[in-house]
Amino acid sequence: MTARRRPRAGRSAGVAQPAFGQRPRPYAPVEVLSGDQVAAIHQAGMDILARIGMRVLDNGARALFRNAGAEVSGDIVRFEPGLIEEQLRTVPRRFTLHARNPAHDVRVGGNLCVYTSVGGPAYVMDNDRGRRDGTFEEMCDFLKLVQVLNVIHQEGGGPFEPMDLPANTRHLDIYRAQIGLLDKTWQGQTLGRARTLDGIEMAAMALGTTPEGLIDRPALVGVINTNSPLQLDIPMAEGLIAMAEHGQALAITPFTLAGAMAPVTLAGALAQQHAEALAGIALTQIVRPGAPVLYGGFTSNVDMRSGSPAFGTPEYVKAAQASGQLARHVGVPFRSSNVTAANEVDAQAAYESQMALWGALMGGAHLLEHGAGWLHGGLTASFEKLILDAELLMMMDAYFEPIDTSPEALALDAVAEAGPGGHFFGTAHTMERYETAFHAPLLSNWDNHPTWLDRGGIDARARANTVWKTLLQEYEEPALDPGVAEALDAFVARRKAEGGAPMN
Amino acid sequence: MTARRRPRAGRSAGVAQPAFGQRPRPYAPVEVLSGDQVAAIHQAGMDILARIGMRVLDNGARALFRNAGAEVSGDIVRFEPGLIEEQLRTVPRRFTLHARNPAHDVRVGGNLCVYTSVGGPAYVMDNDRGRRDGTFEEMCDFLKLVQVLNVIHQEGGGPFEPMDLPANTRHLDIYRAQIGLLDKTWQGQTLGRARTLDGIEMAAMALGTTPEGLIDRPALVGVINTNSPLQLDIPMAEGLIAMAEHGQALAITPFTLAGAMAPVTLAGALAQQHAEALAGIALTQIVRPGAPVLYGGFTSNVDMRSGSPAFGTPEYVKAAQASGQLARHVGVPFRSSNVTAANEVDAQAAYESQMALWGALMGGAHLLEHGAGWLHGGLTASFEKLILDAELLMMMDAYFEPIDTSPEALALDAVAEAGPGGHFFGTAHTMERYETAFHAPLLSNWDNHPTWLDRGGIDARARANTVWKTLLQEYEEPALDPGVAEALDAFVARRKAEGGAPMN
Repeated sequence: MTARRRPRAGRSAGVAQPAFGQRPRPYAPVEVLSGDQVAAIHQAGMDILARIGMRVLDNGARALFRNAGAEVSGDIVRFEPGLIEEQLRTVPRRFTLHARNPAHDVRVGGNLCVYTSVGGPAYVMDNDRGRRDGTFEEMCDFLKLVQVLNVIHQEGGGPFEPMDLPANTRHLDIYRAQIGLLDKTWQGQTLGRARTLDGIEMAAMALGTTPEGLIDRPALVGVINTNSPLQLDIPMAEGLIAMAEHGQALAITPFTLAGAMAPVTLAGALAQQHAEALAGIALTQIVRPGAPVLYGGFTSNVDMRSGSPAFGTPEYVKAAQASGQLARHVGVPFRSSNVTAANEVDAQAAYESQMALWGALMGGAHLLEHGAGWLHGGLTASFEKLILDAELLMMMDAYFEPIDTSPEALALDAVAEAGPGGHFFGTAHTMERYETAFHAPLLSNWDNHPTWLDRGGIDARARANTVWKTLLQEYEEPALDPGVAEALDAFVARRKAEGGAPMN
Repeated sequence: MTARRRPRAGRSAGVAQPAFGQRPRPYAPVEVLSGDQVAAIHQAGMDILARIGMRVLDNGARALFRNAGAEVSGDIVRFEPGLIEEQLRTVPRRFTLHARNPAHDVRVGGNLCVYTSVGGPAYVMDNDRGRRDGTFEEMCDFLKLVQVLNVIHQEGGGPFEPMDLPANTRHLDIYRAQIGLLDKTWQGQTLGRARTLDGIEMAAMALGTTPEGLIDRPALVGVINTNSPLQLDIPMAEGLIAMAEHGQALAITPFTLAGAMAPVTLAGALAQQHAEALAGIALTQIVRPGAPVLYGGFTSNVDMRSGSPAFGTPEYVKAAQASGQLARHVGVPFRSSNVTAANEVDAQAAYESQMALWGALMGGAHLLEHGAGWLHGGLTASFEKLILDAELLMMMDAYFEPIDTSPEALALDAVAEAGPGGHFFGTAHTMERYETAFHAPLLSNWDNHPTWLDRGGIDARARANTVWKTLLQEYEEPALDPGVAEALDAFVARRKAEGGAPMN
């Protein structure tokens, strides 16, 4: 799973890709806060929980909090620091998520990160037809690319809404596609108990086990967004409780946009994020001590002229790295994201996403949500952005490959052989290494300018279109045990007959 | 000089920009090498200098090395470690460069970096006319933008060749434009003694002093590229010696492309870079102990399929950060660069430049060469890339603004005021801060997608075109003492009459 990037082959013969695998980060995370500053924000978060509290709209969740010792007053729940600290004690620092292909299992924690594909957008977009409502068929194409792209470790929860399917049973078709078209881990939907349990049932079937059997073999990640400021709604609480009951992983992610749903100051937004995340994390441990959970950092800022959310900003980067420090302070694995508010797969999309990636990955993230494909502040999944992001992630992986300083790599003999004024093309030292010495790009073009013009002057946005279409040709559906397939199909048919999930 | 970004006004009323000033980096540089690895590369570099040596083509430089104790054999100069260590002792760890407007003086060293504009390309490019030979008039437009853009601290040595001017006197017209159109520091040309001395004479006049008077008041930076592998040619040696004689700053920058002019392994390329840089740095101190000098790290890799140089690659980032460690190891300020091999101002240009920036700035660079405007691996200066890079640099500066964790910033009262389920628009805490809370972009557009389409669907490349044209309208020529202007004009006229610089 931590195989080095040397083997280039893998499934894709046409497009060169490093093999599937999580690359350990060898560098220390960037610390944007001093230890005292981390303690101050932590304390402010604890003060918010003790004095102001969270509004918890779900009766069941309030009851769980009350039984654990929280003070419940109306729908407001307040937490003494000791209660939070007690619940944090059982959070696992690392865990494994199981794929139906064990070679695609992923580990969360330590210096490893799980890169996911985009999850949740309303729309789909490509160069050919612009932004539009998506169909199930297009969604399947997107999932096939997620399977083909080795740098993506986990499917992120359905890339966009297949609007040609009915809303109450759509999740069943998405789950079936996630399981059948990929053999990687995937994320479930957590909006209400029914959708959540359907995902758990189907994930269990895919692994040849039962929901109870899945408890000790977590497969799914579910994202829980608090309704910032300081509110947990009913569908999210139901999803959280159902996932934690079954020992599935949760990423508790406050949506703290500084200046809108959180204070305009980063420290204030982070303090509020910390409070909301800790309340959610505590609930997972109250439901099931030891349930896998991540601290989600999503703090960004709004454009103060328009109120529009902005992503991949300098403030986002600082908040991401600060969030990593806060997560480490409380001993919980850290979730961050690859985000942009750009409207096209242009320079802005690249620089905002890359700012976000440096924030996330050098902030010590263990789960990178929306790692590839997110556009328009999360409203759109883009086929070309998927390719751009895959390139950015492959570059980061190559950056995380440590510099070899062995005597052979220091190459004094090669320097002596070339000599002053010589060159290194064709020397033995070069010939032995050149095929795998450097990152081989998926999207970058290094032609000189006249050659590039002669070849049509194709910019990165247009090249990305060609790359995804080529990769789609390379897709091969991973084999699925016919008995498992039959059981999954029967489950979907039965749940559809029952009417699917209630509409909120 | 280290004013915070609060004051938005400055010279540009139309386009909001933070005021001119170097932002201290508050975060520790990223370390991609362990201490043992740094020592191993340093030792390999010293071994190269002792055993293989440098080819030094200039008689004067060889004589200087011989007198300082180096072993000269033919045109090969070999250095015992003690000789290098002795010369390193006098290198200043920090120094100031003086502009004709003292408010634009810059400091090199510590946690401060000087951001420069692109220097040296052959061609110019914009969206309207593509890549072409440039004229003096267009070069002046580029210089005006460098003056207007507050985030650029220093002009980088002439943005591109004004091909409508004769080659032997072109440098005189460029210097005159650098001095007259800007009141920031600027870089001189160091190709041969004549061009170098002309720059020193004119820089002295601009500061109301003589070349001798400039010794204690350095104004210029000159870049010296060794001819890798392990060679120092005559024009570069002449430039180095003339600059060091006059106490002007030099950035000694080996051109070590791994796989071509350096070993294919990064450690080998870095060891060779280290050897070449140390030889050049030693020569500056032999000429004038205490002369300001920087360690230039420019190691990148070639595309092994085509032999084309690649920039902003993962290998480039690692090499930049490793170079920062090597420079700190020997106690010399560090020069890095903002580079890309992209052919257009597209996603690739953005992600390669941003990779390079993270490598440079989080590698602890004190001088960022080609900070704004470089395209095509340095062959082209682009007007739109200038704007893209200015945005990237402004984002990095905002990232370097420390998070305030004062009680007011932690904002518990504001969180209590908004309360669970509330919002922060219009609260007193927000209203007091919203105008300056976040980075205000130069190029980014955060419209939602329908609005963006309604407004013409203008991508970042096209927006950059509008931005530079708007900024050019805002340019105001900084006042120059009429006596100084007259003296400069007389100098240029005399030197032109003398035939300018000999052509190599």
